[in-house]
Amino acid sequence: MINVSIIGGGNVAYHLIKHLLRIKDVRLVQLYNRSLESIHQFKEVVQITSDISTLKKADVFIISVTDNAIMSVSEAIPHSNCLVVHTSGSIDMNSLNSKNRKGVFYPLQTFSRQKKINFSNVPICIEAANENDYLLLQNLAEKVSKKVYRISSQQRQYLHVSAVFVCNFVNHMYTIGHSICKEHNIPFEILHPLILETAEKIKLLEPTAAQTGPAKRKDTVTIQHHLNLISTQYQKLYKQLTESIIRHNEKTL
Amino acid sequence: MINVSIIGGGNVAYHLIKHLLRIKDVRLVQLYNRSLESIHQFKEVVQITSDISTLKKADVFIISVTDNAIMSVSEAIPHSNCLVVHTSGSIDMNSLNSKNRKGVFYPLQTFSRQKKINFSNVPICIEAANENDYLLLQNLAEKVSKKVYRISSQQRQYLHVSAVFVCNFVNHMYTIGHSICKEHNIPFEILHPLILETAEKIKLLEPTAAQTGPAKRKDTVTIQHHLNLISTQYQKLYKQLTESIIRHNEKTL
Repeated sequence: MINVSIIGGGNVAYHLIKHLLRIKDVRLVQLYNRSLESIHQFKEVVQITSDISTLKKADVFIISVTDNAIMSVSEAIPHSNCLVVHTSGSIDMNSLNSKNRKGVFYPLQTFSRQKKINFSNVPICIEAANENDYLLLQNLAEKVSKKVYRISSQQRQYLHVSAVFVCNFVNHMYTIGHSICKEHNIPFEILHPLILETAEKIKLLEPTAAQTGPAKRKDTVTIQHHLNLISTQYQKLYKQLTESIIRHNEKTL
Repeated sequence: MINVSIIGGGNVAYHLIKHLLRIKDVRLVQLYNRSLESIHQFKEVVQITSDISTLKKADVFIISVTDNAIMSVSEAIPHSNCLVVHTSGSIDMNSLNSKNRKGVFYPLQTFSRQKKINFSNVPICIEAANENDYLLLQNLAEKVSKKVYRISSQQRQYLHVSAVFVCNFVNHMYTIGHSICKEHNIPFEILHPLILETAEKIKLLEPTAAQTGPAKRKDTVTIQHHLNLISTQYQKLYKQLTESIIRHNEKTL
């Protein structure tokens, strides 16, 4: 049995708590959040608190708060020599306060409160300052997910910037496609199968091999036509992305 | 029974031929391509030719060649008053030669020869110059796919530029993520669940509601840190995409 307390009430914390409640060998000791509102719904099944000084001892404290609060929250934990980990993609493990043992438990996924997530498919990237803690975290992570990776703080920052490209920037491409469709009364759902296929394809092909479209073909007629169709705010992006694809293509050939 | 001939041997033609061969009420009359090599594999089941003047009459000729060859190929068809359609996302229906009846049969998907596709889920965007031909095309399209949409040439060009954003540019984001991971010995597969979830999420949420990440949060510390991590060739893109997300966000609020 691993005793875990969760600090934070954002999207990651929310989905993690929901998942941990279903795992037999994990006991949720306590939930802490600055305001009780976002963890209020769990109060029948776990002890909740908004006073960090009342945190009880646990095997693992998982800090899942905004990046710039991690340091101060880790300092405020009223215990020492416990394992304290954070769930951030971009914060170094050593930003955690040194009175406790340090680690990272980074679930690499995009979490929105309105969208259910199957946490057992979420890759968990773990790291710990000492090997025993690593084994404890590995044990916990393997109860949480089928996909556990050892990733150093150094690697994790590159993983995080990659995630920004393949998730946040990708979603922005969806936003632009959606807005163009809306403006011209085209149901956006026509693009769903294309979006899914594009995402699934790269499980089989490397992204460079999967590239298609006017930029890949250097089809300047279509490129120019597209630039004429879209508003100035999208033209700059279209141009730069096209140039970037052409540059990559030339490197690959 | 609808008699169909396919003109072209590219990725779209290849997947379309494979699918049409399995449909009971469609008879493939002939396949034409400039070089026989790419359609050679079908020669046991359909008549193939590289001489366009030997094309027999059919109910529908589907021209699936590169955009800038559509006009000349449609002119070279040795028949008149047949229904001739093309499969392009960006070419106007009226670019087809006027000796035949005109239409468009645009399967909106990304096709790579190495990747199998379930054509019955591919949205088919159709258009025809007269209503009888529209009904014939609709009949054909509904045998090919569960998803058939009436889309005008005018709308189709906007649909196509949207597709470039949500597919081609998205795939380029995958390419950049892949290259960053590779450089830092991080297995790219860690990002697969994130990529799929990002694609699936927008079936439930509008893309603006699904947006997450440092740009959405205006987290300038992380943004600056990411810019320091990546090479100059990606910095410009990262900056512009971030600015564009922030701009969109401000409009939405």
